[in-house]
Amino acid sequence: MADPSPAAPEGFHPKAFAGEVVPFRVVAFREGHDLIGVHLRLRTPQREESLHRLTPLNDGSDRWQVDVALDETRTWTFRFEAFADEFATWAHAAELKIPAGVDVPLVRTLGAQLLARAAKDKDRPKPERKRLAAFADALADEDGSADEALAIATDPELATLLQDRPIASLDSATPWQSILVERTLAGAAAWYEFFPRSEGAVRNADGTVASGTFATAAERLPGVAGMGFDVIYLPPVHPIGRLNRKGRNNTLTTEPGDPGSPWAVGAAEGGHDAIHPDLGTLADFRAFVKRANGLGLEVALDLALQAAPDHPWVQAHPEWFTELPDGTIAYAENPPKKYQDIYPLNFDRDPVGLYTEVLRIVEHWISQGVKTFRVDNPHTKPLRFWEWLIRTVNTKHPDVVFLAEAFTRPAPMRGLAAVGFQQSYSYFTWRNTKAELEEFLLSVAHETADYMRPNLFVNTPDILTEYLQFGGRPAYKIRAAIAATGAPLYGVYAGYELFENVARPGSEENIDNEKYEYKFRDWAAAEAEGRSLAPYLTRLNEIRRAHPALRQLRNLRVHWSDDDAIMVFSKHLDAPFTGTDTSDTIIVVANVDPHSVRQTTVHLDTLAWGVEPGTAYEVEDLVTGSVWTWTDHNFVRLDSFTEPVHILHVKGQR
Amino acid sequence: MADPSPAAPEGFHPKAFAGEVVPFRVVAFREGHDLIGVHLRLRTPQREESLHRLTPLNDGSDRWQVDVALDETRTWTFRFEAFADEFATWAHAAELKIPAGVDVPLVRTLGAQLLARAAKDKDRPKPERKRLAAFADALADEDGSADEALAIATDPELATLLQDRPIASLDSATPWQSILVERTLAGAAAWYEFFPRSEGAVRNADGTVASGTFATAAERLPGVAGMGFDVIYLPPVHPIGRLNRKGRNNTLTTEPGDPGSPWAVGAAEGGHDAIHPDLGTLADFRAFVKRANGLGLEVALDLALQAAPDHPWVQAHPEWFTELPDGTIAYAENPPKKYQDIYPLNFDRDPVGLYTEVLRIVEHWISQGVKTFRVDNPHTKPLRFWEWLIRTVNTKHPDVVFLAEAFTRPAPMRGLAAVGFQQSYSYFTWRNTKAELEEFLLSVAHETADYMRPNLFVNTPDILTEYLQFGGRPAYKIRAAIAATGAPLYGVYAGYELFENVARPGSEENIDNEKYEYKFRDWAAAEAEGRSLAPYLTRLNEIRRAHPALRQLRNLRVHWSDDDAIMVFSKHLDAPFTGTDTSDTIIVVANVDPHSVRQTTVHLDTLAWGVEPGTAYEVEDLVTGSVWTWTDHNFVRLDSFTEPVHILHVKGQR
Repeated sequence: MADPSPAAPEGFHPKAFAGEVVPFRVVAFREGHDLIGVHLRLRTPQREESLHRLTPLNDGSDRWQVDVALDETRTWTFRFEAFADEFATWAHAAELKIPAGVDVPLVRTLGAQLLARAAKDKDRPKPERKRLAAFADALADEDGSADEALAIATDPELATLLQDRPIASLDSATPWQSILVERTLAGAAAWYEFFPRSEGAVRNADGTVASGTFATAAERLPGVAGMGFDVIYLPPVHPIGRLNRKGRNNTLTTEPGDPGSPWAVGAAEGGHDAIHPDLGTLADFRAFVKRANGLGLEVALDLALQAAPDHPWVQAHPEWFTELPDGTIAYAENPPKKYQDIYPLNFDRDPVGLYTEVLRIVEHWISQGVKTFRVDNPHTKPLRFWEWLIRTVNTKHPDVVFLAEAFTRPAPMRGLAAVGFQQSYSYFTWRNTKAELEEFLLSVAHETADYMRPNLFVNTPDILTEYLQFGGRPAYKIRAAIAATGAPLYGVYAGYELFENVARPGSEENIDNEKYEYKFRDWAAAEAEGRSLAPYLTRLNEIRRAHPALRQLRNLRVHWSDDDAIMVFSKHLDAPFTGTDTSDTIIVVANVDPHSVRQTTVHLDTLAWGVEPGTAYEVEDLVTGSVWTWTDHNFVRLDSFTEPVHILHVKGQR
Repeated sequence: MADPSPAAPEGFHPKAFAGEVVPFRVVAFREGHDLIGVHLRLRTPQREESLHRLTPLNDGSDRWQVDVALDETRTWTFRFEAFADEFATWAHAAELKIPAGVDVPLVRTLGAQLLARAAKDKDRPKPERKRLAAFADALADEDGSADEALAIATDPELATLLQDRPIASLDSATPWQSILVERTLAGAAAWYEFFPRSEGAVRNADGTVASGTFATAAERLPGVAGMGFDVIYLPPVHPIGRLNRKGRNNTLTTEPGDPGSPWAVGAAEGGHDAIHPDLGTLADFRAFVKRANGLGLEVALDLALQAAPDHPWVQAHPEWFTELPDGTIAYAENPPKKYQDIYPLNFDRDPVGLYTEVLRIVEHWISQGVKTFRVDNPHTKPLRFWEWLIRTVNTKHPDVVFLAEAFTRPAPMRGLAAVGFQQSYSYFTWRNTKAELEEFLLSVAHETADYMRPNLFVNTPDILTEYLQFGGRPAYKIRAAIAATGAPLYGVYAGYELFENVARPGSEENIDNEKYEYKFRDWAAAEAEGRSLAPYLTRLNEIRRAHPALRQLRNLRVHWSDDDAIMVFSKHLDAPFTGTDTSDTIIVVANVDPHSVRQTTVHLDTLAWGVEPGTAYEVEDLVTGSVWTWTDHNFVRLDSFTEPVHILHVKGQR
């Protein structure tokens, strides 16, 4: 046997989330033509064992597969066991030889010997042994007909009976391997990001601004929950440095009242364990968390391991930074540019001290009710630090989730996922064309899904892509629909609903970026005037909640269309995994050109959801409610200016 | 670090052959922007250590590479060592900051400290420490100019000096891994197959045939050596079974005088350790081997582990076969078909006995001067048997080479290579179109080359493809040219020179197949009458011998042409590896449509051989002698009916 999976690179453990349907696969073959069978032996974290028979993919790859839903968190173990399936080999020969009249007595004798041997196997239950003996006797009966023998070779009762306990020899097994199962929200969730200081901020008559607080921001939570999001993610909530604070639009000088970037963490009032006084107190934060939880929202905090020049660490622990020969501390830089509002941490000088401090901070916020951390720029800190931190935290708090905001090259991005990050920002933001999106979705669903879970943010305070800048409102719909259906994790940064699409010239960020100032948004008015995407986002999240197939990562399949901008993919989940007694299939057909009306034919591999090619079935567009009769070849017309994306549910499935 | 290579699947060792240029690669990165360096630490079988600096591929993959020619057989070990390259990081910052006038005094101080620290390193040679101290002093000199500091950051002497002994910190290393280096002929050789009984066979006046013998067959050896082949491979030379012997054209009945298939091994005269009496004696065989060796040819024997019904094993060791309940031995079969001339071996009943016997046979032929075995159908025997046999034989005789004749699915084919086979038959025979051939050549050169060496046979007694049947003489030229230049191992079965292209109807084999009868071929007459491909094969082998780039597997690169039947690939070897003081580059341009004249433009990545795009250079067609001036875009016209393939040598290279 070879290539057992799920597997992660470099000896790290693969992962899954509770309820995830995981394909267990292995390459297995033996010499010659005798048939083999393969079992997956699986142990739950409580070491309860179960056996699952794999099916050959029969595509020439010698790969075998069985899908199992892992429904319990913590570490499972598994191994594959291959064996010579002696009964299947005999039955296969019998099915060919008996009708051809070749060696019939010999075939009967061999079958009878095989079944008689199994009937003597003391590991088998008594009733089973009796049945096997009866079949053996029937084959051994010299008066029996060839037809009877053939019937035994193809008997479904016998096949079922031998499915779990085959008549096997020459067992071989892969080494035991482990897979870490994390809670469902680690793998399937809709994220929403907002700046609490903007929610409820008031511009006074004199032009000054009264910051939003946790109390005012909490008033926005019902709206976020109402849209169907699962996680509310807050940029850093700590005191913001005053030294070299950045002004509006990332300028080097501030105007009075400029609040600064929350990622410039730390000031006289405190550092990573403190609350910005403008937002309130720790008690206010706890109240905010409680309110969110009551609405079914989980609060995610930002973990931005860097310091403003006036962070308390700078005086207390210069050894956690890079000290220069002149006694100053090194700014962040990209030579010859310098970022004088930020001191990066140096993890190599006092690892024990700094590691311990970060752990203390994380534990502090966990004690305040936080279970999810969005980690800023993890790729600028050592991989082994993250490996240690996440393992240490998860040992005590297995529910804690870390999302890696690492927009970097594939190797470090995958490395962070492998060492333990539960979620990862991805390249989705910059994959716009049909070809790019197909390649991206297939890659995350099939190449890296064993250890990396992409969170498909459509925008962030740092990223307003050209596609959104110049694609108009259709672009916002298209990107949201693909993110929400293409992967079980996706995210939206506030303002997306309002189609905020003007960038600071020469940059890929919003103009008047919220990182450096307050934003005043009237959600209700926009919605009342039809200027909001909120109803569409709400519908997307409803569809996600209603359709378990959309809450899986690995079940994505790309189909064909004749148009170079119409992308088609499906997500299917078999009945045993849906929690209902029917399977669940969603077909997404998206016109990814936001400037056009396109019509074409889509060609579907309907066998993916158990429909024979050429057979008719009904689909319902979950956005518009339209119902059509489809086959494997279907005409579609998608007008970007009205509904650029069909999200179709295959009806009448079992 | 991740993905170190060369690597083989499932913990088996990768392999190379003496003189092979092996790319050693690893993925290496660290957090942030500081520069790193990577070394390969290599130990010869004598445990002599050398250090090789890797170069980043700079393609976003974080992969680093260095090419090393492994020139000594047996097991080498290696590991990769990554380190923070402090001097490179400093020099990079200095090159950006000094011209920008940023932090110049600080940059000088940091550089001076770094070099002064290295100058104190007692592991460095004295003169080196002195030079480093001088550079440090120059940087520390407060009167020094910014230009001087910049000159030190970019000083080539300093760079060279720090290449092997960088100023490094934070070392990390991969585990030690091993790579097995085998003799050159294991990886680079031209094979020729003939049936010794046909060479010198005489048809008597009464219609009977006097078989060729080792003595008469040896008369053909100068011809084979003259064509430039390295290995002469003989089908089994053992007594041939008489029971159920197959007749001409694979019929079930024989006519008097039918010699039978040599693969039906064993008769009253003996089994796998005996010589067929028609061919002569063991002494005759030794004389044949000696004659071949004298001509620079190595003799390869067939190892066909199966038995005719009258093989001595059948009586002496029925436990080495599958015995049926009626006391008979099971024939080979593909239900409901049976092959009554062959008993397959059963390796599971008496593994110790059978393994020992096979080892005895192999040792017997080794003692007769044989060092290469072509193994018939190894995929019908257990992988673990081959692993044991090859390891056991190679421990005592590291020069012995096994070629796996396994035309099966990719997984078992690769498995046989991984467990130890030095060479493998491949899918080349059935890869005919440009797209198929490009995919095939790239796959064997880059995906599996660490453990699998394909031997590109153009035909065999079992395989006369439709391409050859219907492609006429051009097809024979095209296939031979691609096989001989596409990989360092290729093979030809006798008769190919004569364009023997008529198949038995409904089969993929020659009609009147030599497996079941004698062939009478007049090589000299064919050549004299211009009906022979021998001169072309001779030229191909001359070109292979003259051009070391063609004796490497991993150096193949595919280029673009605008025509869907004109394939272009190059093989390049840098000067340090050619054994001369110039690099060697061959460009092959093949019209793979044997029925046409095609003309098109080919587009070459000339940087592969160090030529800047747009620059002119001379190429010589090694088949015709024509010389042209080429650039990166070139017109070609290939007439299948005259010369379908250009084999071009890039001239004037250093």
